[in-house]
Amino acid sequence: MRVLLKGALTMNFADYFPMWNKLTPAQQNTLKDTVTFRSVKKGTVIYNGSMDCIGLLLIQTGLLRAYILSEDGREITVYRLSDMDICLFSASCIMPGIQFDLIIEAEQDTSFWIIPARVYKQLLEASAPLSNYTNEIMANRFSDVMWLIEQILWKSLDKRLAAFLLEEAALQGTEQLKLTHETIGNHLGTAREVITRMLHYFQNEGLVKLTRGTVEITDRKKLAALADA
Amino acid sequence: MRVLLKGALTMNFADYFPMWNKLTPAQQNTLKDTVTFRSVKKGTVIYNGSMDCIGLLLIQTGLLRAYILSEDGREITVYRLSDMDICLFSASCIMPGIQFDLIIEAEQDTSFWIIPARVYKQLLEASAPLSNYTNEIMANRFSDVMWLIEQILWKSLDKRLAAFLLEEAALQGTEQLKLTHETIGNHLGTAREVITRMLHYFQNEGLVKLTRGTVEITDRKKLAALADA
Repeated sequence: MRVLLKGALTMNFADYFPMWNKLTPAQQNTLKDTVTFRSVKKGTVIYNGSMDCIGLLLIQTGLLRAYILSEDGREITVYRLSDMDICLFSASCIMPGIQFDLIIEAEQDTSFWIIPARVYKQLLEASAPLSNYTNEIMANRFSDVMWLIEQILWKSLDKRLAAFLLEEAALQGTEQLKLTHETIGNHLGTAREVITRMLHYFQNEGLVKLTRGTVEITDRKKLAALADA
Repeated sequence: MRVLLKGALTMNFADYFPMWNKLTPAQQNTLKDTVTFRSVKKGTVIYNGSMDCIGLLLIQTGLLRAYILSEDGREITVYRLSDMDICLFSASCIMPGIQFDLIIEAEQDTSFWIIPARVYKQLLEASAPLSNYTNEIMANRFSDVMWLIEQILWKSLDKRLAAFLLEEAALQGTEQLKLTHETIGNHLGTAREVITRMLHYFQNEGLVKLTRGTVEITDRKKLAALADA
């Protein structure tokens, strides 16, 4: 857990939170008094439907993954959030109408501010700008999910896998991706065996090179052409 | 097009619009002056991404279907709206963050009020209660879409088809469903041939009876058991 002086913490929060200047001084003070800061290690589950509703998360640095889980343990990544993104659904208890459970997990070491759910709810009730902003965040996540539906329904797995590997390379900043076939399967909602088969096909085509626990991109251009096809 | 006196029209709107009493008298007057009423026949496309952004629709009676379309003409129903529901995405131009195109079509003869997009936007900017209510509608549609993802990923087609036929029976108020196999395919995001094959399997199992243009449910209990399995 990183330790920061309270003043530095909230000053920083004000820089990161896009609606800060649209709030009244009283509302700003409420936030200053209640926002907390937290750093977690890669792999930490920050929120799942059965835990307490922790509040909104504003990411300083890192990467979070939101996913859903089937009754028999299958996963699919719904969206990912990184620096300066806001995670809304970790406060789903204050949002009437939300009838699904997302799990939020740190994919990299991640630092974030937490706005407690009850505080945010109180601000929402008083502030039209904040409520409209919240609407906009939800609309963005909604767009992510609609994109996902189109992918699942209408894009073949080879294209989705190619796009995922390129996204990973951008996020990890390297073409030597540390990724198990199971992890990839959990992102794409597909069984490990199916991913393994497709990766071997990619290797035969010269797109990637597989070693234990890594997938190395060897032909980025061809991979991009496949993803966009 | 039904003709109604303006007074009767807006009085009725006030009864149907859940946030009416949360608005100021000035805001109520703005709505009274700008809301229009429209009746359309079954099959009418009311909105698609390329048309003008018409505004929010408040349904008096009828049934609307929101669906997406692939580049090569495949469809899947994302959700359906009926009496007293509000259609938000026919005003997506005023919602920053919405990056997808839904098509809204009348599945039955439908009557609805239209709140013009620019009027709604202006009200949203001034009214926290209205903005929070809009958030709640979006959260409900979001939940519909998350449910759909789980269905597509983790439910086999026989269960989805069984659930769809029961939903249709409830909506049409009969077990003699007027439905082509192509229509069912468009709802479920599946090719017509696949639906035909599954319906014949259902017929062999005694769940339905098929005649030209109709699907008759003959064993509702077994169908419900299959849908819930």
